Amino acid sequence: MKIGVLGSGMVGQAIASKLVERGQQVMISSRNPEKVKDFAARVPGVQMGSFSQAAAYGEVLFNALKGEATLEVLSSVDAGSLQGKTLIDISNPLDFSRGMPPSLYVCNTDSLGEQIQAAFPQMKVIKTLNTLNANLMVNPGSLAGGDHTLFMSGNDDQAKEQVRHLFGEWFGWRDIIDVGDITTARGTEALLALWVRLFMKFGSPNFQFKVVR
Amino acid sequence: MKIGVLGSGMVGQAIASKLVERGQQVMISSRNPEKVKDFAARVPGVQMGSFSQAAAYGEVLFNALKGEATLEVLSSVDAGSLQGKTLIDISNPLDFSRGMPPSLYVCNTDSLGEQIQAAFPQMKVIKTLNTLNANLMVNPGSLAGGDHTLFMSGNDDQAKEQVRHLFGEWFGWRDIIDVGDITTARGTEALLALWVRLFMKFGSPNFQFKVVR
Repeated sequence: MKIGVLGSGMVGQAIASKLVERGQQVMISSRNPEKVKDFAARVPGVQMGSFSQAAAYGEVLFNALKGEATLEVLSSVDAGSLQGKTLIDISNPLDFSRGMPPSLYVCNTDSLGEQIQAAFPQMKVIKTLNTLNANLMVNPGSLAGGDHTLFMSGNDDQAKEQVRHLFGEWFGWRDIIDVGDITTARGTEALLALWVRLFMKFGSPNFQFKVVR
Repeated sequence: MKIGVLGSGMVGQAIASKLVERGQQVMISSRNPEKVKDFAARVPGVQMGSFSQAAAYGEVLFNALKGEATLEVLSSVDAGSLQGKTLIDISNPLDFSRGMPPSLYVCNTDSLGEQIQAAFPQMKVIKTLNTLNANLMVNPGSLAGGDHTLFMSGNDDQAKEQVRHLFGEWFGWRDIIDVGDITTARGTEALLALWVRLFMKFGSPNFQFKVVR
């Protein structure tokens, strides 16, 4: 499958590396592709491009951008290249302007996932992977044999089932809860308020939530 | 130990019943003690009183009131009877004015736990038990043998260690994370945004979060 990854930070690189390892065709993108030259050199097979190129390339897109950059970047690419595509949205509306821990600049009665879906109704936005560390996103089995939970929110049931299937195949995810429509991203984005405090407490991002039921 | 329980809804009744079962001296309180006469008849040994009486009676107090009633009720009791006491605060700032799922009327850059601590500096406020169903609060072993996590926030380390010890003895809690000072209640109160959506998804409150690490 051809996959476009928007954003080239820790999350984008973790996703792109694992997908290449799994035999997918991947284009990672950055505002300045020069910045990811080192990464591309380390990961043979990964392609580099602009945001517009990655958006056009991917049959499925990952949003690994910072929350505050997401709407702007998506608005900058050709709208036609987004048509009908699934956007796996990992971004969180984190506000670091007052230092650590960050607060959320959208929350409670709205979410970034909803804002993206409203701004780009031609896409199927699936909010997921936003509640855990980049390494665990793509290697869930590295912690407790993968015995922990991933959340998923989105309006399109078929797209969610496709993501569930792909994440099992690509990353080994076994416990994925479809929380509901994209408004349920209010719940998973809010989880960051606890995640960042546990991260500060533990001094490590190598932990995960499990829903015991 | 003498324990005062503020509030006589599902949470207050679950706490009071279990503590009586564990041999503690318990006074449960309500705005209208007549309302809990049936409960008291079912649980021999439990005492009933006004909020002021329960606050004066308890060496340790449980806040099992609704979020929006908490500050008002605590303000209505004799300030001296709160002096130096630990308040185990289970309340959440839930706003049901727009129906289900509720939003939070305090969140993100503040929390109800902090508001209570600021208004009553003579108390040691410990925010805990607010992220799960009443039955699981007092019977954690009834789900997955108790293999799930309770969070605790508060400014007084000694009071938190006392609560950790008492909750182990009374309820059988094994995994309690001291997240940090009372500002970390922003994280655990925010978890309600996800909890209520999972509750709606599952159609049952019999689930719990575990922090896998």
